[in-house]
Amino acid sequence: MQLVEGDEIELIEAGITVVRGILAAGVHCGLKRKRRDLTLIYSEVPAAVVGTFTTNQVKAAPVVITQARVRGRGVARAIVCNSGNANACNGPRGERDALAMGAAVAQELGLDEEEVLVASTGVIGLPLDMEKVRAGIAQAARELAKSREAAAAAVEGIMTTDTVPKEVAVRFRIQGHDCFLAGMAKGSGMIHPNMATMLAFLATDCAVERESLDRLFRDVVRRTFNQISVDGDTSTNDMALLLANGMAGNRPLTADDPEFPNFARALEYAARELAKAIARDGEGATKLLEVRVEGAASDEAARIIARSIVRSNLVKAAIFGGDANWGRILCAAGYAGVPFRPEGVSIFLGHVQVCDRGSALPFDEAVASEVLRQPEVVVRLVMEEGQGEAVAWGCDLTYDYVKINASYRT
Amino acid sequence: MQLVEGDEIELIEAGITVVRGILAAGVHCGLKRKRRDLTLIYSEVPAAVVGTFTTNQVKAAPVVITQARVRGRGVARAIVCNSGNANACNGPRGERDALAMGAAVAQELGLDEEEVLVASTGVIGLPLDMEKVRAGIAQAARELAKSREAAAAAVEGIMTTDTVPKEVAVRFRIQGHDCFLAGMAKGSGMIHPNMATMLAFLATDCAVERESLDRLFRDVVRRTFNQISVDGDTSTNDMALLLANGMAGNRPLTADDPEFPNFARALEYAARELAKAIARDGEGATKLLEVRVEGAASDEAARIIARSIVRSNLVKAAIFGGDANWGRILCAAGYAGVPFRPEGVSIFLGHVQVCDRGSALPFDEAVASEVLRQPEVVVRLVMEEGQGEAVAWGCDLTYDYVKINASYRT
Repeated sequence: MQLVEGDEIELIEAGITVVRGILAAGVHCGLKRKRRDLTLIYSEVPAAVVGTFTTNQVKAAPVVITQARVRGRGVARAIVCNSGNANACNGPRGERDALAMGAAVAQELGLDEEEVLVASTGVIGLPLDMEKVRAGIAQAARELAKSREAAAAAVEGIMTTDTVPKEVAVRFRIQGHDCFLAGMAKGSGMIHPNMATMLAFLATDCAVERESLDRLFRDVVRRTFNQISVDGDTSTNDMALLLANGMAGNRPLTADDPEFPNFARALEYAARELAKAIARDGEGATKLLEVRVEGAASDEAARIIARSIVRSNLVKAAIFGGDANWGRILCAAGYAGVPFRPEGVSIFLGHVQVCDRGSALPFDEAVASEVLRQPEVVVRLVMEEGQGEAVAWGCDLTYDYVKINASYRT
Repeated sequence: MQLVEGDEIELIEAGITVVRGILAAGVHCGLKRKRRDLTLIYSEVPAAVVGTFTTNQVKAAPVVITQARVRGRGVARAIVCNSGNANACNGPRGERDALAMGAAVAQELGLDEEEVLVASTGVIGLPLDMEKVRAGIAQAARELAKSREAAAAAVEGIMTTDTVPKEVAVRFRIQGHDCFLAGMAKGSGMIHPNMATMLAFLATDCAVERESLDRLFRDVVRRTFNQISVDGDTSTNDMALLLANGMAGNRPLTADDPEFPNFARALEYAARELAKAIARDGEGATKLLEVRVEGAASDEAARIIARSIVRSNLVKAAIFGGDANWGRILCAAGYAGVPFRPEGVSIFLGHVQVCDRGSALPFDEAVASEVLRQPEVVVRLVMEEGQGEAVAWGCDLTYDYVKINASYRT
């Protein structure tokens, strides 16, 4: 049993189906050559749903539809997601197809169409093969299950260039009730979420009042999914959803409940683990880059600076090469768009300080190289502007990133 | 004789020394292992000077000093620039060294210190070896000459990872006088100028009133140097300078002079050629990417969208791979931060239309691939928002970019 975030949250080896009332399935319907490409997540009872969505002006059809449903009724019973095709830039046909995906799920499961959320990920500008999608939905509906295997199949069904599945599950107690919160995510490329994220589907059986859940989720997304970057490209299909079906039996939590912070910690932990998993598995990545900014003028300033550093191609290439080129780190902080005094900035690579208040500090290159050779590299930027702090996550820029993206469609 | 921009401007095979009264030198003083690393440009008479500078919060010492001199007196006699060392993040010592570089030039040439402009480019956070710099300045002062060779040596002296020298020279007529405008630039990496540029030094013998020159230069920089991107990283050392020493003998031009547009065209042509040369020679680049945006809400909106596309890692990798992945182009337009209707956007790769009003258009992949295999790839984005238009230049993202930047310092 692994306790995280103090001793109140337990990390468990499980998938999304560990949440009471949540069933899942992942099938192969033929949109991708071999791997699973269609995922269905189902709640036995209506669940409050909150979400964040891409800020890209170009929004895929399923994003538009799901965003309207989440902001409208705010209650969901199912999420359907295909991979291999983004259903973006397909004009009126894309919208019809996204609606039809939801309708097919509603029919298979006897739900109201408005209770079905739709997502897609994959190539842009290619119409969906709806015959395959409909067959996949029928099969997934038949295979819905509460098993570990069903959860794992569901995670596989949303993957594109991801090399590892990304899921997380925690247990915590609210009002004496055992509660679960679990989720999955896909990432890899076109990852630079902006008030949104790549695909992440989370569920909890903890009962939470929807308004409080909505505010908390936006807040958590801002500190987790919105703080990762693989390549600086904000996708047309980003979406993070959280279902709360209340099946744990607790009285619905509101933001002023003394136990709300415990739920908030569980959610933030789960979201952060998924966000880090996405950054670590960025296209071509060999390392997770964690950038911590302290002493900024505000948390928001710290977030912007941390993101600018994890986004920098030059920083990312230096991390790949194990080159302690801290000038690029300070440079990337400098063009983030936030005013600060460079003479107040100190930089640490792991435990090695390389820059003291804006100036070079003699350091042992061999020790610094050793730090940079680790699979997780922590860069700490300490400023003298105020109390603001934030963390961002990214990855190195490698030959394989170029290779993967020079021929993604072919 | 090659006429450009209508029939009034003649492109000539020459360097900056073609400008009357301008002498130059480039020497090797030992900051780099073998190649020239110190450049001196000298005007026999005082020249009006205007410039734009990096907006990075972290400004190298020479940038701070030169910016103050350009905005202060606005008159210059010499530019000194070393490569191999950026003299950035070196604390008070960096400032002393930058001042000393200027002072050494003033002493060698009998000038006022305030008339000497200082620039540096290279590694960040490494103190300058002033003994070498002083010796280099003395040698350069001795070698100042008006020859084609001296101009070529001066261009070499400012190069870092540039693989080709970048210079331009034009002749035009003002009030019946032959005038020359010529310049040089260096680029390669950390190229994403923001209200500034990488190093570019231009000179003209045309007499131009300083206020008019200043406004024109900012305008031209906005459409040329600020519209290029190699890797999205805005350097700490960006600087573009233009000297106008009036030795052509014309009455000083002001913005309302009927012949001012002719001078403006010559300047814009020269700046654009240097900007494109920087983009084409981006680190590891195999192709020049030109993105034209038409029909945007405003020129500024068009500039922002064009820059977002040339900056996208995913677009750049697709161009490298010859992959006609237009979804990434539309996606990068969408996250530029400018509102527009995707249903009004059409995209052309060279002469091949691949997207019609936001939706896929069947096209011949072989023909599109052929377009993308050329050394210059033109992407055209036609919107239905208004009359705004702009061009931006970048390059492809290649294995060599990663290779160069994984071990720049070592």
